[in-house]
Amino acid sequence: MEMATQEEEAWLWTQIKAEARRDAESEPALASYLYSTILSHSSLERSLSFHLGNKLCSSTLLSTLLYDLFLNAFSSDDSLRSAAIADLRAAKERDPACVSYSHCLLNYKGFLACQAQRVAHKLWRESRRALALALQSRIADVFAVDIHPAAKLGKGILFDHATGVVVGETAVIGNNVSILHHVTLGGTGKVGGDRHPKIGDGVLIGAGATILGNVKIGEGAKVGAGSVVLIDVPARTTAVGNPARLVGGKERPSMHQDVPGESMDHTSFISEWSDYII
Amino acid sequence: MEMATQEEEAWLWTQIKAEARRDAESEPALASYLYSTILSHSSLERSLSFHLGNKLCSSTLLSTLLYDLFLNAFSSDDSLRSAAIADLRAAKERDPACVSYSHCLLNYKGFLACQAQRVAHKLWRESRRALALALQSRIADVFAVDIHPAAKLGKGILFDHATGVVVGETAVIGNNVSILHHVTLGGTGKVGGDRHPKIGDGVLIGAGATILGNVKIGEGAKVGAGSVVLIDVPARTTAVGNPARLVGGKERPSMHQDVPGESMDHTSFISEWSDYII
Amino acid sequence: MEMATQEEEAWLWTQIKAEARRDAESEPALASYLYSTILSHSSLERSLSFHLGNKLCSSTLLSTLLYDLFLNAFSSDDSLRSAAIADLRAAKERDPACVSYSHCLLNYKGFLACQAQRVAHKLWRESRRALALALQSRIADVFAVDIHPAAKLGKGILFDHATGVVVGETAVIGNNVSILHHVTLGGTGKVGGDRHPKIGDGVLIGAGATILGNVKIGEGAKVGAGSVVLIDVPARTTAVGNPARLVGGKERPSMHQDVPGESMDHTSFISEWSDYII
Amino acid sequence: MEMATQEEEAWLWTQIKAEARRDAESEPALASYLYSTILSHSSLERSLSFHLGNKLCSSTLLSTLLYDLFLNAFSSDDSLRSAAIADLRAAKERDPACVSYSHCLLNYKGFLACQAQRVAHKLWRESRRALALALQSRIADVFAVDIHPAAKLGKGILFDHATGVVVGETAVIGNNVSILHHVTLGGTGKVGGDRHPKIGDGVLIGAGATILGNVKIGEGAKVGAGSVVLIDVPARTTAVGNPARLVGGKERPSMHQDVPGESMDHTSFISEWSDYII
Amino acid sequence: MEMATQEEEAWLWTQIKAEARRDAESEPALASYLYSTILSHSSLERSLSFHLGNKLCSSTLLSTLLYDLFLNAFSSDDSLRSAAIADLRAAKERDPACVSYSHCLLNYKGFLACQAQRVAHKLWRESRRALALALQSRIADVFAVDIHPAAKLGKGILFDHATGVVVGETAVIGNNVSILHHVTLGGTGKVGGDRHPKIGDGVLIGAGATILGNVKIGEGAKVGAGSVVLIDVPARTTAVGNPARLVGGKERPSMHQDVPGESMDHTSFISEWSDYII
Amino acid sequence: MEMATQEEEAWLWTQIKAEARRDAESEPALASYLYSTILSHSSLERSLSFHLGNKLCSSTLLSTLLYDLFLNAFSSDDSLRSAAIADLRAAKERDPACVSYSHCLLNYKGFLACQAQRVAHKLWRESRRALALALQSRIADVFAVDIHPAAKLGKGILFDHATGVVVGETAVIGNNVSILHHVTLGGTGKVGGDRHPKIGDGVLIGAGATILGNVKIGEGAKVGAGSVVLIDVPARTTAVGNPARLVGGKERPSMHQDVPGESMDHTSFISEWSDYII
Repeated sequence: MEMATQEEEAWLWTQIKAEARRDAESEPALASYLYSTILSHSSLERSLSFHLGNKLCSSTLLSTLLYDLFLNAFSSDDSLRSAAIADLRAAKERDPACVSYSHCLLNYKGFLACQAQRVAHKLWRESRRALALALQSRIADVFAVDIHPAAKLGKGILFDHATGVVVGETAVIGNNVSILHHVTLGGTGKVGGDRHPKIGDGVLIGAGATILGNVKIGEGAKVGAGSVVLIDVPARTTAVGNPARLVGGKERPSMHQDVPGESMDHTSFISEWSDYII
Repeated sequence: MEMATQEEEAWLWTQIKAEARRDAESEPALASYLYSTILSHSSLERSLSFHLGNKLCSSTLLSTLLYDLFLNAFSSDDSLRSAAIADLRAAKERDPACVSYSHCLLNYKGFLACQAQRVAHKLWRESRRALALALQSRIADVFAVDIHPAAKLGKGILFDHATGVVVGETAVIGNNVSILHHVTLGGTGKVGGDRHPKIGDGVLIGAGATILGNVKIGEGAKVGAGSVVLIDVPARTTAVGNPARLVGGKERPSMHQDVPGESMDHTSFISEWSDYII
Repeated sequence: MEMATQEEEAWLWTQIKAEARRDAESEPALASYLYSTILSHSSLERSLSFHLGNKLCSSTLLSTLLYDLFLNAFSSDDSLRSAAIADLRAAKERDPACVSYSHCLLNYKGFLACQAQRVAHKLWRESRRALALALQSRIADVFAVDIHPAAKLGKGILFDHATGVVVGETAVIGNNVSILHHVTLGGTGKVGGDRHPKIGDGVLIGAGATILGNVKIGEGAKVGAGSVVLIDVPARTTAVGNPARLVGGKERPSMHQDVPGESMDHTSFISEWSDYII
Repeated sequence: MEMATQEEEAWLWTQIKAEARRDAESEPALASYLYSTILSHSSLERSLSFHLGNKLCSSTLLSTLLYDLFLNAFSSDDSLRSAAIADLRAAKERDPACVSYSHCLLNYKGFLACQAQRVAHKLWRESRRALALALQSRIADVFAVDIHPAAKLGKGILFDHATGVVVGETAVIGNNVSILHHVTLGGTGKVGGDRHPKIGDGVLIGAGATILGNVKIGEGAKVGAGSVVLIDVPARTTAVGNPARLVGGKERPSMHQDVPGESMDHTSFISEWSDYII
Repeated sequence: MEMATQEEEAWLWTQIKAEARRDAESEPALASYLYSTILSHSSLERSLSFHLGNKLCSSTLLSTLLYDLFLNAFSSDDSLRSAAIADLRAAKERDPACVSYSHCLLNYKGFLACQAQRVAHKLWRESRRALALALQSRIADVFAVDIHPAAKLGKGILFDHATGVVVGETAVIGNNVSILHHVTLGGTGKVGGDRHPKIGDGVLIGAGATILGNVKIGEGAKVGAGSVVLIDVPARTTAVGNPARLVGGKERPSMHQDVPGESMDHTSFISEWSDYII
Repeated sequence: MEMATQEEEAWLWTQIKAEARRDAESEPALASYLYSTILSHSSLERSLSFHLGNKLCSSTLLSTLLYDLFLNAFSSDDSLRSAAIADLRAAKERDPACVSYSHCLLNYKGFLACQAQRVAHKLWRESRRALALALQSRIADVFAVDIHPAAKLGKGILFDHATGVVVGETAVIGNNVSILHHVTLGGTGKVGGDRHPKIGDGVLIGAGATILGNVKIGEGAKVGAGSVVLIDVPARTTAVGNPARLVGGKERPSMHQDVPGESMDHTSFISEWSDYII
């Protein structure tokens, strides 16, 4: 891990402990929870491993086993930790309902599902596939978030609300992407191979959007809520509707300058889109 | 609590116990469950607090702590109890699959999520925000229903099926509203402030509808299943489609006389709408 | 149970144990899980009953009670077992992400929810309705799959990903049907009676599709992702969009020859549909 | 199972259910417990298997596994059931604090430990030693009763209070024996082979008595509380003290006519013994 | 509750919270435990009810039910609370290993078993016998302390170490009594009625002593470790041995001036007793 | 850790895994248990930490926390590991009922309590007393073995059966000591300071023996079952009875040559002792 990231991790962990300490002091009913999940731990990776182990365990997959698994992964792989840090920052910066880093760490099922998937992905790459798939199943049961362990996720990802998200085996998600709940990055049939969407950096995908097939959603593109996307979407354009059309027209779509995955601007295209509204 | 409501509460509790007793007698395999959740309790608030405490607890948030929290809230705040009663009535009257009040009390995740959110809302208003957010997280994990504790909910609300419902921080839902599963009352960006929909009394929102931004859905309006609504919907009109349009046209939309949130008429607009169907 | 099915069951169980044994050997961290769920059991019905009992139990509905309930049902009713076998085959054949039968048996919430619903359906038909509804509630909490116990399900059904699926009381689903996540087979109002969709054999319903009312989706028809269907869809045609229209037009819709519920071809209609894409 | 025993079993089970029903009616707080442990079951063997499974389970030995194990044993082996019946009768007849059969079935750790040991003994005889020893360990943890699975136990045995009882590998206990808490039937060294006490029919062993080595406690003998017995005790005599001496003297010990294991007369020898009391 | 006792309760609770706070600060690994058991509660009775509910619960007797039961008892019955306070003081004053009040409250199984028995005794007196006996059973399983709910216990009682203590149905224990582990206050046979020991105020009973029958242990008497007592022991005398004899002789036993139950002097009689030692 | 011990640890771990593998193969019902406790772990310290964490956890002291605590202790302190190894050897060599090392590791509550106490002792010495005492309490609840964390334990210790063992704060136990169940090494009063027995190397203490006060049990001495010892016992002599006397007389006690703590010869003194038997 680079020095800068190490410093950031240290800063963030200090911040999280300060938040938790403040909350524990003002709310005795929550203090036990905050001590067990955050304040009793010596590092972010231990806190996160403890929390995931207790959240994802079942009567047949014990918390101690999962805790061990997560702790080994987070301790040995810097990139998992730096991705977690980038995701925490993403939630704090992009979601106005995110009141603190500890709030995201403890309560955001999208954040937790994403960290657990990254560990599952590491297992998948190490050919420990049965274990990776068992993890996927626990994440899908507990968080209602179903991301195949083979899917590749970037950093700085925000799965906001997250319930119902489905991401297929050959999907790729870039950096600084924001994906709302009920979003599907799905396949197209029963043939294997490369069959799921590729999401570029900085993309924003609205709630309930369904993107199917090996299509490319270009950098900084935006997919409107409820859209059904079966085609490529060029960089910095907006696709909306069912079936999804490019705002501004297929030939000369409107381009935006901001990075929607970071600006989280869901609805600025309305004025243009409203032409279709009777 | 007013006398009339007290009487209603007493009547309803008597009814629920009678239903549970009948079920326990005819189904020994379920008797233990019915006694622990209903028949061993002396009041509706105790039964509900016990059930929520056991449903929402985790290894780090114990059932006894949650039971205490819920019981304190329901015992000290009449409006929470009268809202629960109105919700039980709503489910029984509007959902033909609801065979009894006890069925709703025990099995409806929408009902349970809603009661728990009201307690979280009370905590939020008392500035116990960390605890309120922890509750939101448990509700989102257990029921896959994600309602921000700051959102304001009226009475007589039916969250039917409820899986995947997302309601944002500044959303307001009126009385006698019916909301199907996968419905989103979402925000529009990363700026805070008043940014979520306001749902009037008697509104019906169909399955999978997405309503974004600080828009107003007028009293007695109807939003069709799968609609994506980014605009105000006038009272007693119907919005359908993606993007949602008013049935009858923007200028002179068709008006209905019934209260869709109570009549649950999801599809009467089809004849009119079918003009758009090729 | 017919001889052929008995042989198939024996073959499949042998296969599942071989897969689990191979995984247990290569992944010690998972061996305990694989022995408790599969390798310690003498039959598929015992393994499945154990797994469902442990997945669906709660602090008020104990695993031993549920295990007993499931084992009694699967042991005494051949059709439940042959349906489970057909569903396992369906997942393995139609879903390229399904790497083994044991993967489906252990990890597919759609498969598990479906088997549990069939037991609930059996209870419902035996007038043990309170117990059937309690099971439905557990399935909805644990898997976020909400299928009314009165709904009739055929064999060879694949609920892929499954999160958010809602199937109403009078719905009927034929054989060899594939249904993606977030699909609703819903009702139309608060009046009881026959009010939910009838899905023919071999139908494919894409992610997020909402089908409302007592409409008929003909044999081998296809419903596109995100569609909102309020009308009958003839056999071997494709309905897409919100509101859903028949590809090729209402008068002379395009017909396909394959069985979409088995071929899982989600997107071949795009070329035709893309005419609507601006 | 003989007809007479079958009838007794049926009578006893009817009795137990009647007791539990009466208690459930008068004590709602206990009704859930009584339904889950007794009233929801169709037979004594199911009730007992359920209760033992839930008492003896741990996070690594699941209740469903143990339930299965116990139910298989009790269902297939009549002698286990008739021994349980004799033990229930023994407690009810000999212990004035035993208010009902259901009280013994649910609450007597001596009774429960004894039934579980008999199943472990059956496993031991079937050469399933690792499982038998795991059961012994669970019984020792949960009930603080440590009986080696190889020890042979008769019928109509009362382990009263039972905490701290230790019975070694080659010990044999006859029929209608009563053994108080803290009693040890121990070995004499590190050499294997036949090295533990043999307890005849109708023997009574007082609290805290320690009997060591392959000694013979004759039929109807009595061992006083706190005695340390290293020698044979003839039939119908009483041994008391540390080291234990025969009441009446080694040469011509006093003989009693009753069966102490059934009459439970702990202290009638006091007058004679008091000669030793200064 | 008298004013003085109220003040003492308030003082003690302040003390306990201060101890717990100090421990939580110096030992983060224990902070979660201390907050959940002590620091999150508003009163001693709530803390104690929570702790007992979580210690004594099982899969069939839920913690929420027990918590409710204990809280109702401790809230409504001052004498239960003042007895608990006297017991806490007894442990702190008499046991040099007791480092703090919170140490006793959290960790002393004798203290916890005693408080739970007092609640069971209250239930017994209210004719809620089945529930009282179920509690006895849980206490016996969890703490290996078996006190019949009908037994009458005074205040200021110290059950030191406590494992293996057995106290029968008609036993009575006075105030300021200290009883070591493995002590039996047992009956004499199978006839009901008044058949257990009566222990006077200020008595000390050494480890492993067995006292049988309706005998009277006079005020301030002492029973040596391992003694077997079948006779009355006069006030302020010492009984030792098996069978127990009075130190100094039956006719003119030695009298002591201190209160052994408070001074905890186990062995001062040795010099006198050693005459019997060869 | 010395090389020889490292090799022994490696050999023993290989042995334990081989035993567990053999048992898992011959007993599928136990395989899940054996994999989770032994076969999935990479070292004895991980297996032991996992097993202790799961055995000693409670709803307020989570298994993950305890696992972490034990693993840190066993990993960082060689002497804890070598003591565990010596204890495993002691059980296997001295207890004819100990069929394998894995049997001891998994099932011997004396072994497990002893290892956990050593960790508590380490915490005590590091001034983490509140945590050490909390551990003591869990050990006392779960195993009914109550050893103060300040007590000093040697290596090669066998607590056989172990139920009811009580060891006080200032007790010291040497190497190669064997202690049966119900043994007390207790104090003499309420004054603090050095007040508990000192047990020399190679001592054997029989079941139910009570040793009180700061007395010295010399090297290779033997204390008979049920003895009450209030005096020093010279090396290689035997004390028996209540009160305990030296076999052979106080002046010229019989001396033995073997090491009773290793030879486990409980009863060879009988012939001599029997002179006291009338």
